[in-house]
Amino acid sequence: MDEALYEQLALNEGGRILFLVMDGLGGFRTAERGSELAEADCPNLDRLTSEGITGLLDPVAAGITPGSGPGHLGLFGYDPFCYEIGRGALSAAGLGYDLAPGDVAARVNLCTLSDDGTIADRRAGRLPTDEARAVCEAVLSGLKIDGVEVVLAPEREHRALLLLKGDGLDARVGDTDPQAEGVIPLDPRPLDPAASRTADAVAQLLDHARSVLSDRERANFLLLRGFDSQTDLPSFAERYRLRAQVLAQYPMYFGIARLLGMEARALLTGIEEQVSELVETFGQFDFTFFHFKATDSAGEDADFARKCAAIEEFDSAVIPAARALDPDVIVVTGDHATPSQYGAHSWHPVPVILWSSRAGRDLVERFDEDACVLGRIGRRRACELFPMVLAAAGRLAKYGA
Amino acid sequence: MDEALYEQLALNEGGRILFLVMDGLGGFRTAERGSELAEADCPNLDRLTSEGITGLLDPVAAGITPGSGPGHLGLFGYDPFCYEIGRGALSAAGLGYDLAPGDVAARVNLCTLSDDGTIADRRAGRLPTDEARAVCEAVLSGLKIDGVEVVLAPEREHRALLLLKGDGLDARVGDTDPQAEGVIPLDPRPLDPAASRTADAVAQLLDHARSVLSDRERANFLLLRGFDSQTDLPSFAERYRLRAQVLAQYPMYFGIARLLGMEARALLTGIEEQVSELVETFGQFDFTFFHFKATDSAGEDADFARKCAAIEEFDSAVIPAARALDPDVIVVTGDHATPSQYGAHSWHPVPVILWSSRAGRDLVERFDEDACVLGRIGRRRACELFPMVLAAAGRLAKYGA
Repeated sequence: MDEALYEQLALNEGGRILFLVMDGLGGFRTAERGSELAEADCPNLDRLTSEGITGLLDPVAAGITPGSGPGHLGLFGYDPFCYEIGRGALSAAGLGYDLAPGDVAARVNLCTLSDDGTIADRRAGRLPTDEARAVCEAVLSGLKIDGVEVVLAPEREHRALLLLKGDGLDARVGDTDPQAEGVIPLDPRPLDPAASRTADAVAQLLDHARSVLSDRERANFLLLRGFDSQTDLPSFAERYRLRAQVLAQYPMYFGIARLLGMEARALLTGIEEQVSELVETFGQFDFTFFHFKATDSAGEDADFARKCAAIEEFDSAVIPAARALDPDVIVVTGDHATPSQYGAHSWHPVPVILWSSRAGRDLVERFDEDACVLGRIGRRRACELFPMVLAAAGRLAKYGA
Repeated sequence: MDEALYEQLALNEGGRILFLVMDGLGGFRTAERGSELAEADCPNLDRLTSEGITGLLDPVAAGITPGSGPGHLGLFGYDPFCYEIGRGALSAAGLGYDLAPGDVAARVNLCTLSDDGTIADRRAGRLPTDEARAVCEAVLSGLKIDGVEVVLAPEREHRALLLLKGDGLDARVGDTDPQAEGVIPLDPRPLDPAASRTADAVAQLLDHARSVLSDRERANFLLLRGFDSQTDLPSFAERYRLRAQVLAQYPMYFGIARLLGMEARALLTGIEEQVSELVETFGQFDFTFFHFKATDSAGEDADFARKCAAIEEFDSAVIPAARALDPDVIVVTGDHATPSQYGAHSWHPVPVILWSSRAGRDLVERFDEDACVLGRIGRRRACELFPMVLAAAGRLAKYGA
């Protein structure tokens, strides 16, 4: 579905939608056992499954392993092949910086260089965020680049955001992060002649940082990647006529949600705080995006049992509270798979439940990959889900005479 | 598949196809019971199912609620996002008026205005067609609009067709039907400067109608919507090399079929007449589109039991007679869902049977939504069905060497 069609069909009124994303939810069966979802004990999700319709989604497309940006864009109905969010824009949005036209953002890793100038640790020992804040402040003190204003903001641990503001900037600058250790960082290169001034400003920044941080044992340099300028996505309000909010614990998901025009207040700490904020605010919005991170973190750590436990925690802490709010539509799915056998994002499809009195039921009674392949939503790209979500909320008009 | 591919692959010869459309067939399961199709007793359809292949179709695309035009276009292999039929063109074709280039058509509701000029009843009490005919004749008598020839033809009950012929006409005129009661009708506005002459002609027509009908208690004015000009669709003969006919009881389905170049003789009254016409004419055509309306009407009236009964009537009255004709291919499906829980068209997928000795069988043995989701056709957009229908009739050549 394209912009014009949503413009034509989206209604101003309709049911309230609760969109629950368990990050990295998907997994796969092996000879030894089922996926994490298959092995987890989740009676509340199973009940929701038996009362709704189900399917298996490819977050971007079959075989594609998505980053968090494309994974969520697909779920929210924005075909990730047509809409793009760069890592820099995502970081900026997550920290509450609105990129203005002409601004350039990049993702920063504070890193540790050896005496010979090669990278000893790309993440500077995952230093505490407070220490990272001090490093950022040190780099900015005394920094002067002609006609360029620099923001260097700590994100979490070794992660930070670089934001350049000024006339004539251009994001087509190559990464300085070689994504490897034991080699020296790359120089900032313009990928287009128009970006040579920007590359030059970045080089000045890096020279300054190298000298200011030279006495430090760790976090004595910066690695930059994902140079990026403003991402202009049609907002939920424009595209779907939905007043939307996000409830999340991590800046990146705030970032994605902000880029889509969702209201993002304060990051929440812990699932109980997320649920109590949900209970308090659900009635004020047409659409609530609730992001649960623990499934992905466990998958990334290749910890099968912890991922099962995270699913079980979600099942008991979130689903009963969600149902008590009497939403018109509940969606449960993930933005991609993070099988603990991989310890990383993967291309495997992700199960989905669409629950609504307007959607009906299929015969699937168990929320896992094996069962949901038989569901009525079918096996499809995630970006095809959203029109069904809107339809189940009574928010799409009839097409054609 | 696009025009060029059909041009390349469609063969002149092949098997005979019977395409049975149960209007509004699809439905959904709730806590209490299955869909209408799941609850209906239809042994003949079940036998056809067990001997064919099955699937679930999205008439237009996932989540989209189609009108009858897009619903049928999709079934007939014309992607509704690429081909469009306006309501006016549909009405004109249904009544046997061929829109010439430059003609403008609109859908008319005879309505009842209160003394204060507001709309009391948008459908004028669904007056009898004969009374509507007299109203149309009254409006035309003494009407004179410079350079414009006007046709005002009754359709059924309060529905009529307006057709304007003349030089320099343009269909970009806004609806005068506000689609609400208690408000005054809208003035005809040009949506493009090129349509100002047309809007002016419509205004003259409405002034005349208002004065001529002013003494009437009901049906004392006209509401216009869906202004439209010629729709130029590639015909079944050009696109598929099929000589096709339609057998239907309602003008709209004649309209759709005529726009695709199917032969449409006389509207038929009742299912027995449709079946006897089928038996008589089936051998003369490559493709017969048989349209059954009662499923949709019952769904629209939110009458679960009547929709079940309509399915059962179709099962016993049509399927055995159809099989006795020994077609090479039988298709049974619907143009969209009309769940009786909605009482309206909906976005839910519709089951399909493709029966042919060339198609093989899957393991599905019951014709309903729950069973057909497991079928070999899969879960896909309706416009992807038609190439399989042609293939099952041996009417598509091999693609590539």
